[in-house]
Amino acid sequence: MLIALDAMGGDHAPMEICKGAILACSQHNDIQIALIGRPEAIKPHIETASAEILKRLNIVEAEEVIDMAEAPAVAIRRKRKSSLHIAMQMVHSGEAVGCVSAGNTGAIVAGGVLIVGRIKGIDRPGLGIPLPAVERVSLLIDVGATVRCKPLNLHQFALMGDVYMRTIQSVERPMIGLLSNGSEEIKGDELIQETRNLFKNSHLNFVGNVEGQDIPIGVTDVVVCEGLTGNILLKFIEGTGEALFSLMKAEIQKRFLAKIGMAFMLPMLKELSRRFDYERTGGTPLLGVNGAVIKAHGRSKARAISSALGVTRDFVSKNGVQAIVEELEEGGVRSGN
Amino acid sequence: MLIALDAMGGDHAPMEICKGAILACSQHNDIQIALIGRPEAIKPHIETASAEILKRLNIVEAEEVIDMAEAPAVAIRRKRKSSLHIAMQMVHSGEAVGCVSAGNTGAIVAGGVLIVGRIKGIDRPGLGIPLPAVERVSLLIDVGATVRCKPLNLHQFALMGDVYMRTIQSVERPMIGLLSNGSEEIKGDELIQETRNLFKNSHLNFVGNVEGQDIPIGVTDVVVCEGLTGNILLKFIEGTGEALFSLMKAEIQKRFLAKIGMAFMLPMLKELSRRFDYERTGGTPLLGVNGAVIKAHGRSKARAISSALGVTRDFVSKNGVQAIVEELEEGGVRSGN
Repeated sequence: MLIALDAMGGDHAPMEICKGAILACSQHNDIQIALIGRPEAIKPHIETASAEILKRLNIVEAEEVIDMAEAPAVAIRRKRKSSLHIAMQMVHSGEAVGCVSAGNTGAIVAGGVLIVGRIKGIDRPGLGIPLPAVERVSLLIDVGATVRCKPLNLHQFALMGDVYMRTIQSVERPMIGLLSNGSEEIKGDELIQETRNLFKNSHLNFVGNVEGQDIPIGVTDVVVCEGLTGNILLKFIEGTGEALFSLMKAEIQKRFLAKIGMAFMLPMLKELSRRFDYERTGGTPLLGVNGAVIKAHGRSKARAISSALGVTRDFVSKNGVQAIVEELEEGGVRSGN
Repeated sequence: MLIALDAMGGDHAPMEICKGAILACSQHNDIQIALIGRPEAIKPHIETASAEILKRLNIVEAEEVIDMAEAPAVAIRRKRKSSLHIAMQMVHSGEAVGCVSAGNTGAIVAGGVLIVGRIKGIDRPGLGIPLPAVERVSLLIDVGATVRCKPLNLHQFALMGDVYMRTIQSVERPMIGLLSNGSEEIKGDELIQETRNLFKNSHLNFVGNVEGQDIPIGVTDVVVCEGLTGNILLKFIEGTGEALFSLMKAEIQKRFLAKIGMAFMLPMLKELSRRFDYERTGGTPLLGVNGAVIKAHGRSKARAISSALGVTRDFVSKNGVQAIVEELEEGGVRSGN
């Protein structure tokens, strides 16, 4: 299968993206990768790959690049020769089975809707992030594709999250939680209360409202929220990890005994950080678009890109898009579009 | 000064509330405390106090208690003999200079609005939490008083947060941030964009949108958001602390060397946890109501209650309410009420 890879998107593009492509090819024999971007920027980073892998890497020329700071919908419409636009086109035309980008999230969402297109009946796409928590990995959806939502959007996120956890993560009957400011029925605003009723009257395994403290524990398999909330939470989590790490480092520098202690604790800290390592997940599908569009973290290095390519392969092999189409037909929650 | 204390509110009421009252009296010579609740439940916990302190503790009888799970506005209206209702009445009548409760947050907010009353011109009150971050303590406002907001509400939270940080925390010219899903001007929804314009055209030291990752760093002195988002974030923070602690404990149990390491690192971990200890802050004023209404954490023990009483004393001494009144007159951002 051919996967389109935006070689120019992300903080460490193109070098780490190219390295990730090589790594993924060495891990999966059945994939080929179209590296999309400026050939002269890509070539130096793939030269060292083995002949067998080089055969499976094609460079597809793209003159333009969409920056992280550009207005997403405008950029994706105007920059028709950008690496991201071309990657999306390849998915739309069927030339590639899916695409991966670590670039501008808004542009990936806009491209997913405008170029790849929505699944019939889906009002707005949702970006879910599998969050490692104490008891399980929970899918937090949406984390920024749809900033403000209608009850229909949250309902569709729940259905797509349910499909994702069943199909891709092999969770038998995913527990669905609706993020609110309290577990009681009276909590939340109109949006949350209307959504709650939609969930209750669906075939979803809805277990009720969840609160902020339930997320690190991992009380449900899917946590549904508006994109604004999910985005703030996700970035808060990343920032907290970094802040704590730098604080600990500073404290350890100051204290000799703490340095010794740290050495003893390393295996434990490694185990903890392994559990919460987003590079192991690497990429997450934009759910609700008519193809496998996988968003990798902007800071992705080779290992994360390779994981994202693995996620794409998995999502395609398991017919992720088709599973959502079928779910919508059964669930009967389509918008008018 | 007489402070009204809801002796029946909170997870550890009445024992820890009473202990907290004794502790506060031993720390501050100028306060007296009205312990409001069932006399037979309160008495056993204050018997051991010294005669000097006992003189400054008055029990005020209240037959009813508002539960954590009750619908706030209904409970505060109906239970006129509840400890919380009576505490609020004492503030409204001027009998007490302020009140503290670790009870049902919604009922405290409802009571603040319905019994103590709003400051003229304030549309909705805001509950701010001082969050310890790497670079400073940031006030996160609102964390649940006003679930969904209009631009006016967010603007008033910013003004009140500014006053709070200047008056109570002695920050000279507080930097104000608006929580959004991106730092760029185009990010956010209509609410955020309209609020941004209000901030820009005010005398506030508005430094722009802040994102989730800016909170643990402490980029601004005040972080303004809707109550729903703030509440979810706050509970997430608490839950994460607990989850990490229990994970570390479990890992340490499994590893002998980690136990030794932990012993060496204890001074450092204590220093870190001291920095992030909410018990040191203990209570936070419901900003926008016409009196010192201080909300303590539901899980407060004696030390946190004592801190909350100290916060009340401080807020009253520094004329916190009057400072907000003056700010509104100068800022000219009143609602029509």
